[in-house]
Amino acid sequence: MIIRHSPAAPRHDPQGFFRYGRIVEHPESVERYHILLAAAANAGEVREAVDHGLAPIAAVHDPNYLELLRTGFARAPDKVEEVVPTQFAPWTPHRRPEGLAGQLGYHMTDTSTPLRAGTWDAVYGAAQAAISAADDIFIHSVAYALCRPPGHHASAAHAGGFCYLNNAAIAAERLRASMPRVAILDIDVHHGNGTQAIFYDRNDILFVSVHAETASYFPYFTGYADEIGVGAGEGFTQNLPLPLGSGDDAYCSALAIGIERILAFAPDALVVSLGFDAAAEDPIGAFTVSERGFVRAAEIIANAAMPTVLIQEGGYPSKALGQRLLRFLQHFDAMRPDA
Amino acid sequence: MIIRHSPAAPRHDPQGFFRYGRIVEHPESVERYHILLAAAANAGEVREAVDHGLAPIAAVHDPNYLELLRTGFARAPDKVEEVVPTQFAPWTPHRRPEGLAGQLGYHMTDTSTPLRAGTWDAVYGAAQAAISAADDIFIHSVAYALCRPPGHHASAAHAGGFCYLNNAAIAAERLRASMPRVAILDIDVHHGNGTQAIFYDRNDILFVSVHAETASYFPYFTGYADEIGVGAGEGFTQNLPLPLGSGDDAYCSALAIGIERILAFAPDALVVSLGFDAAAEDPIGAFTVSERGFVRAAEIIANAAMPTVLIQEGGYPSKALGQRLLRFLQHFDAMRPDA
Repeated sequence: MIIRHSPAAPRHDPQGFFRYGRIVEHPESVERYHILLAAAANAGEVREAVDHGLAPIAAVHDPNYLELLRTGFARAPDKVEEVVPTQFAPWTPHRRPEGLAGQLGYHMTDTSTPLRAGTWDAVYGAAQAAISAADDIFIHSVAYALCRPPGHHASAAHAGGFCYLNNAAIAAERLRASMPRVAILDIDVHHGNGTQAIFYDRNDILFVSVHAETASYFPYFTGYADEIGVGAGEGFTQNLPLPLGSGDDAYCSALAIGIERILAFAPDALVVSLGFDAAAEDPIGAFTVSERGFVRAAEIIANAAMPTVLIQEGGYPSKALGQRLLRFLQHFDAMRPDA
Repeated sequence: MIIRHSPAAPRHDPQGFFRYGRIVEHPESVERYHILLAAAANAGEVREAVDHGLAPIAAVHDPNYLELLRTGFARAPDKVEEVVPTQFAPWTPHRRPEGLAGQLGYHMTDTSTPLRAGTWDAVYGAAQAAISAADDIFIHSVAYALCRPPGHHASAAHAGGFCYLNNAAIAAERLRASMPRVAILDIDVHHGNGTQAIFYDRNDILFVSVHAETASYFPYFTGYADEIGVGAGEGFTQNLPLPLGSGDDAYCSALAIGIERILAFAPDALVVSLGFDAAAEDPIGAFTVSERGFVRAAEIIANAAMPTVLIQEGGYPSKALGQRLLRFLQHFDAMRPDA
């Protein structure tokens, strides 16, 4: 399997974030990149991302938002380690402010997505890894992109939940440029709210998400089963929320239902938002999926026998993280009918 | 002049808040109450707020929001000093979560409004001071409510900008129950975004706000001159934004324009959102209004000769804060044509 990554990933090095009144250690750490790269290297051929420029990113994201991500840190009035929002745009009518502090609040939904000196390089690199992996599947059928920071909580114009650019959405749009239908399956423990928002009114990109119920769990405000899309997109979003604490059986059953919906859609390619934070060992997860559960998940998805781009989403440092990725990739390769 | 206050005010004692990456000292401190009460006591007759119950508050605020303010702190899973949101509801379609963390983000727009053990008592007391002062003007024509915490950034269902209950809106609605038309004049340096949102579609309560331009200044997302109301409320909101750094002349000229609009509306009573953070000495303000400027402001408003409730909004501890309030109240009393 081709493994795409960007050596710029470590340049985004958040140290802490404001969580319910305290500044805590940021789980989306540089360490994740090293753990995941070392593991993936045992499952395939590691290649650096090719730089395809801004166009495939701008196909998904708002230009003002991209400008803020690219230049926001440099606009800080004082010498600071990072800029991060304090105030957030309300849902009442409002407009985009001119100053940095207001723009951060306009384009972010929480306090976990600081802009630091190397943030743009890292998020740009992660998006290029996703684009490169999408291109790889035309030849190799399957590829894995080690995207860090992750992307599925980022919408067209909003960062949030450690995410800046929606790598899975960018990969799906890249594929969509050469094929009529693309499906996205999001198996991260958190609802892929950004991806859902991006494609909510479209019928050419199906979005299916298996995740922990959001009534009391991040990202809190969306992810319910009755969110099915709007307009032309009605019926092209499927949420499969599961109770907190769900394990292998519930997770794999929901995945199987999601794959069934995807097969009915008959996409030309599949993008998987591959989080490992459903793992029992995950420090911030809410499920109890075991290594065996992830192996079954790999088998269920591989059996769909579609050209597939695997996009790294969440999954936070624990003793098990590297092993979860390695086993998933190995089994995914082994289980594919054309392997 | 009758001075209304609540002795519960010091029970809300925020210690710090998250501002652009760091936890800083909270400017909306208990000290404000003591400074303002000592100053007001020299300008009138101090009386405790009468408890009018929840009904006049519920006339303005969403019941779910009130429930969160009242019970949110007690719902904290661990022993904590305060609960405060981390994630905020986006403007894309979303729904109200069940858990505490999500509900905090659903009902708040920034990180400055923690719920602490005594927060509900203090915000409830501030609202009762506003209601009591509104009732006072039927007999005494003018009254001042020392509301702490302040209120004009709170909308029907959102806390933000140090504000929880919109004391000025509650006072205006209280008056409106006995009279056809009420005007609100907001002279705090910050746009009264919460008050604007509450009355934006109504033509029975006119809202006029003089404030620093919001393109690069809190509250960032509203406050422009072309926001004039919607539906039946079109033409019943007037924003008079002024450049950062404005002084006495600009401030008083804008006030005079606002008073002209209010006189044309011919209200039965006036509510003033009285902030002193336009003062040159204010630690977080953006104007350079002098003591002389506030005296002129008092004169301009007093000359309108309307039954008037003065509601304390912002204005943060400095050597000048108490003196600004005292001189304003004294001149307001002295300048009234019926005085």
